Amino acid sequence: MNTANITTVKGGVTAPRGYQAAAVACGLKPSGLDLALLVSDTVATAAGIFTTNRAVAAPVVLSQAQLLQSRGMAKAIVINSKCANACTGDDGMVAARTMVEETATAIECETHHVLIASTGVIGMRLDIDKVGAGIRAAASQLQPDVHRAAAEAIMTTDISPKERAVAVTTPSGTFTVGGMAKGAGMIEPSMATMLGFLTTDAKVGPELLKEALREVADQTFNAITVDGESSTNDTVFLLANGASGLATEGRDNAVTYSAFVEGLYAVCSWLAREIVRGGEGATKLATVVVTGAASDAEAKRAARLIANSPLVKTALNGGDPNWGRIVAVAGRAGVAFNQNKTKVCIGSTTLFADSTVFVDREPEAAAHLAGNEVEMSIDLGTGGSGSATMWTCDFSADYVHINADYRT
Amino acid sequence: MNTANITTVKGGVTAPRGYQAAAVACGLKPSGLDLALLVSDTVATAAGIFTTNRAVAAPVVLSQAQLLQSRGMAKAIVINSKCANACTGDDGMVAARTMVEETATAIECETHHVLIASTGVIGMRLDIDKVGAGIRAAASQLQPDVHRAAAEAIMTTDISPKERAVAVTTPSGTFTVGGMAKGAGMIEPSMATMLGFLTTDAKVGPELLKEALREVADQTFNAITVDGESSTNDTVFLLANGASGLATEGRDNAVTYSAFVEGLYAVCSWLAREIVRGGEGATKLATVVVTGAASDAEAKRAARLIANSPLVKTALNGGDPNWGRIVAVAGRAGVAFNQNKTKVCIGSTTLFADSTVFVDREPEAAAHLAGNEVEMSIDLGTGGSGSATMWTCDFSADYVHINADYRT
Repeated sequence: MNTANITTVKGGVTAPRGYQAAAVACGLKPSGLDLALLVSDTVATAAGIFTTNRAVAAPVVLSQAQLLQSRGMAKAIVINSKCANACTGDDGMVAARTMVEETATAIECETHHVLIASTGVIGMRLDIDKVGAGIRAAASQLQPDVHRAAAEAIMTTDISPKERAVAVTTPSGTFTVGGMAKGAGMIEPSMATMLGFLTTDAKVGPELLKEALREVADQTFNAITVDGESSTNDTVFLLANGASGLATEGRDNAVTYSAFVEGLYAVCSWLAREIVRGGEGATKLATVVVTGAASDAEAKRAARLIANSPLVKTALNGGDPNWGRIVAVAGRAGVAFNQNKTKVCIGSTTLFADSTVFVDREPEAAAHLAGNEVEMSIDLGTGGSGSATMWTCDFSADYVHINADYRT
Repeated sequence: MNTANITTVKGGVTAPRGYQAAAVACGLKPSGLDLALLVSDTVATAAGIFTTNRAVAAPVVLSQAQLLQSRGMAKAIVINSKCANACTGDDGMVAARTMVEETATAIECETHHVLIASTGVIGMRLDIDKVGAGIRAAASQLQPDVHRAAAEAIMTTDISPKERAVAVTTPSGTFTVGGMAKGAGMIEPSMATMLGFLTTDAKVGPELLKEALREVADQTFNAITVDGESSTNDTVFLLANGASGLATEGRDNAVTYSAFVEGLYAVCSWLAREIVRGGEGATKLATVVVTGAASDAEAKRAARLIANSPLVKTALNGGDPNWGRIVAVAGRAGVAFNQNKTKVCIGSTTLFADSTVFVDREPEAAAHLAGNEVEMSIDLGTGGSGSATMWTCDFSADYVHINADYRT
C-alpha cells in the first residue's frame, strides 16, 4: 500500500526543517567557493557510505571512525573542494583532525559530531590555515536558505551544481528530503570523486537510517558509471534530525519505512542521473537493462560491464545501434548466458533475437539513439529472472581531450 | 643453461620448412584479399587457444571439436576476413562445416585435419559459395614463399600486416618458428578479434605443443590489451610439422623444450606488441609493470586494470605523468595493497613513494612519456614478491572517432 505522495520542492540540503548552511571562498581554489558547512540545529542521526577503493583518503578514514564513535549521530558536515587530502600519509590525518576540531569549536558541538569530506587534487597537502579560517567564516554566516552556494562550493570540474528536494506527504503529515552532489568522472586531475550530502527532517533511528541509505544507494549512486573508475574520496552522508515531528518509529506521527525510502530514492535517483548526465564529455544519458539472468547479481555484473564498455559507449556516442557489441560484452561478463536465446533491444526496437538479426530495423533504433536519453536492453537467454539496471553516458572525443590535456 | 641462439629471419608463416600458403580475393570484401589458406606438406601436430567469451562464433566451436577429434593433429588452416560467421545460429555451423569440407576436398586431406577461423562483421551470414570458390582457387595457388599476402588477407581494420619469423640455432641444428596475426581493437564493426597463426618445423608432440602454446600465450597474447574487450572469434593456432628433422623428444637431433619455448616467445611477443602498437587510434606502446603484490595473480589483476583504465590511458595520450590515477586504479583492483608503502615510477623516475610526492621530478617523467615506447610501474607495497607485466596503448580521440563513426 503506497500512501506517500512525493512532490519536488525548491531548495536542496536546507529544504528540510532545522538545517542551515554556508559556503565561502577560503582560497584553496584561485577563485570561487571552495568550502561548505552544513549544520543541523539539533544533533541528528547520521549514516555514511564510502569508497571501496583501498587507496583511501584521510577524511574518509576519519569520518568512518567518527560515525562509529558517535554511534551514528552528527550535527555538522564540512566539505572542501580543490584538495582531496589523499595520499599524504600522517600529515593528511593531522589535517583531517584539525578540520573536525575547528568545526566543533566554531559551532560549539562535540568533536565526534562532525563529519568531513574533501575532493580535488590528490597528493597535495591540505592548507589547514586556509581551511580553518574558512570554517570560522562559514560558521558565522550559517543561514537556513543557503543551499545552492553550498552545492557550488563542493564542485570541481562539474558543469553545474546538483541539488534536489522533495516533500513526502503521508497520512500523518509531511516531511522533506533534500540533497546535493558533485560528480563522478569529474577528475581533478587524478580521479573521479563522487560526493553526496542528504538531509531529512524525519526522525529515523541510526540503524534504520543506515539500512535505508544502503538500500537506496544500491539502486542509485551504485547503479551509475561514467568511466568505471572509483576514487579515494567517494562519500555519501545522510542526516535525519526529526524536526518535522514525524518519525519512522513509535505510534504517534508515524511514517512508514517505505515512505521514507521512497522520498530518499526520489532525491538520490535524480542526483545520480544528473551526475551521469554531467559526466566529462557526456552527450547522452543511457539506461542499460539486463534481464533473463540467472540471478540479480549476475545481471548487475553484466549491466556494469556493458555500461563501462568503451565499444558500447563509443557506439552510443556515434548513435550506432551496434547490438553486436552488447552481445560480446555480455559474453565476457563471466555469467550464465545462452547466445541462441539472447535478445537485444535499442529503445523498444528488437535488433537481435533467437540468432536472427533484424537489419531493416536499424534506422528505427538509430532514431531512438539520436535522442539524449536512451535505453539499451539485453535478455541473456538463460530463462532466469535475474535483472538489473545501470545508468551510463557515452564516451566522446571530449572525454579524451579533457583527461589527456588536463594539465596543458 | 641457455644454448639456443635466436635470429630474426625473413618471412612469416612459411619461413619454417614444409609449409605453403596462398591468399585470394573471394569477394567478401568489396576489394582486396579476404581468404588465406595455410598448408603443411605433412600432417602436423596442432594446438589452439580460443576466446573465453561465452558468445562464441561457429568457427571457434568447430575448430575446438576438430582438435579433439584429431587428437591435436592438422594439415591445413583456412581463414576468411570481413565476415565473423558469429551469432547466426545453426546456419553458421553449416557454413563452418562447409568451409572444412571444401578445404579437405581441395587439398585432399582428412576433414578432421582442417582448422578454420573467421573475423569481421558479426550477425552477417557467411556467403559459402564465395568462400568455397576462394578455397578452391587458393588450393591451386599454394606456394612456399607466400606469407605476406596471407597476413594481408586476414586483416580487417589493421593498418599493416603483422608477421615474424625466427631461426633457433641449437647444438643439434636449426629450426624455425614463423607467425602472422591480426589485431585486437580492430573492430569491424562489432568487436575486437585477435587471430594468430604460428608454424614451426620442429617436431613437438601434441601435449607438449599445447603446453608450450599456453605458456607463451600467457606472457604475450594474454598480456596485451587495447580496450579490455574480447571477441566471439579470438583464436591462435600453432602447427609443428617436424620438417627440420629436430625434435623435442627422443635422443637423436634433440632440442630442449626451453629452446622451443624461447623461439615461440620471440615470435609471439613481437606479434603481440605489434597488435598493441596498431590498436585503433594508438600513438604509444606502454609497458605496465606491477611488483610488490601478494601473488603473481594479484599483480596480473592490478596490471590488467591499470592497462585498461580510461583515466590512465587518456593521461598516457596526453603525456601526463599522472601517478595518482595509477594509485587509484590499483586501489580498486581488489588486491592486497598498502598505500603508505606504494611506489610509482614513470620510466625510471620515482614520482610517489612512502606517501611522498616528488613534484619536481614531473618534467623528467613527462619527457619519458613523450616517446612512443613508455613504461609505468607500481609497487603495491605489500612486501610480497608477486609481479606481472602487461602491454597496452594510449586512448586517443581517434579511438572514439573510429568506433563512434564506424558506420557513417
